[in-house]
Amino acid sequence: MSLLEDLQWRYATKKMNGAKIPPEKLDYILEATRMAPSSSGLQPYKVIVISDPALLEKIKGIAYNQTQITDCSHLLVFAAWDSYSGERVTQVFNYMMDERGLPHSNMDAYKQTILGLYETKGTEWQAHHAAKQSYIAFAMAIAAAAEQKVDATPIEGFLPEKLDELLNLRDSGYHSTVLLPLGYREAGQDWLVNMKKVRMPKELFVTEMTLADAADNQEAPMEMNLDAFTQK
Amino acid sequence: MSLLEDLQWRYATKKMNGAKIPPEKLDYILEATRMAPSSSGLQPYKVIVISDPALLEKIKGIAYNQTQITDCSHLLVFAAWDSYSGERVTQVFNYMMDERGLPHSNMDAYKQTILGLYETKGTEWQAHHAAKQSYIAFAMAIAAAAEQKVDATPIEGFLPEKLDELLNLRDSGYHSTVLLPLGYREAGQDWLVNMKKVRMPKELFVTEMTLADAADNQEAPMEMNLDAFTQK
Repeated sequence: MSLLEDLQWRYATKKMNGAKIPPEKLDYILEATRMAPSSSGLQPYKVIVISDPALLEKIKGIAYNQTQITDCSHLLVFAAWDSYSGERVTQVFNYMMDERGLPHSNMDAYKQTILGLYETKGTEWQAHHAAKQSYIAFAMAIAAAAEQKVDATPIEGFLPEKLDELLNLRDSGYHSTVLLPLGYREAGQDWLVNMKKVRMPKELFVTEMTLADAADNQEAPMEMNLDAFTQK
Repeated sequence: MSLLEDLQWRYATKKMNGAKIPPEKLDYILEATRMAPSSSGLQPYKVIVISDPALLEKIKGIAYNQTQITDCSHLLVFAAWDSYSGERVTQVFNYMMDERGLPHSNMDAYKQTILGLYETKGTEWQAHHAAKQSYIAFAMAIAAAAEQKVDATPIEGFLPEKLDELLNLRDSGYHSTVLLPLGYREAGQDWLVNMKKVRMPKELFVTEMTLADAADNQEAPMEMNLDAFTQK
């Protein structure tokens, strides 16, 4: 199956059956996640893998009791840097240069540029920026799971501060961004499994633009209007 | 090739050769992008496709003159909602219910819950939240391009306010989040093409946790330390 077919196959599984996914599939999904690109290659995030029922039970309690948290095989917790420090950025760039057999100083100018830019943006912006990078990795995990015919549920519905506290994330400078339970569907108890997958119509999702549509020329017709596409 | 092999094959192309990608590959990449999941299925983003050389030239000028902007075949601009309004959310949920043959009122309670939550978070948070969703779609575009052996360059280095102005995004309630030129590498002039792909070592990227590592118990060893992995 192609990536497109995998994405059409997958859905946000609402009920899982508790079955375990084979270790090699978990490793594959994590490896695809690790390969995700990120801004300046900094990978300002990590993935926490949880399969301990006792810990999953606690997490379910701070995730609106969504049953996938405890019925999954493994829960992936994505956690991003709280901020970009010179120390963290230097560590990653030095490692990158060492792996490429280049002097650390190669990155000095670029490092000063991005640290200067990030500093002017403030730490709240930095936390969002790092979180955005984690969403790229999160997406690769979703795609890899679908390719392996492993079900998954992208979950933003949880109390991040409480999860950060539970997992000791704060002290290490990380914050949880998003969850991905991996497992297998319990189709008979899953209200979403047979629902039509609905996406924004291509005509609204994709806009082609030329210079004639740009600001110094006429106004572009960019408003979203789904009404015309609705089957009444 | 598997997704993992595709991700190992791809790299952030630094020099493109101006060749055009076949229309069916562009369509495929956009369709995979459209299939990306998003929070509550709202898809609070769109993709603008640009191949007009005159417009690309203007965009290059506000993207630190990165040559991929003008040497690509097509530039994808990802743009996310500035905020979540009742009107926008209602429009998407109504469309979803119509497509599934369900009454609009099915979504009323859920809609009030998320609109209430988002309102307390404020519009800056909302813009970041919508942008994060666009990063999932962005990642699917990157993966789909790699699968099609189309080169791509994930780009955050541009002046978003200026791009929003150029593309008339502000008036329609969108803001640009990230760019993806699609095209083909000019390997002989690309300094990155033969560099080793460097990623955080798996031992640091993935952490397994049990209840024994959680807050009410001992402190988890979560600090990032790349030094041990560096080949000195």
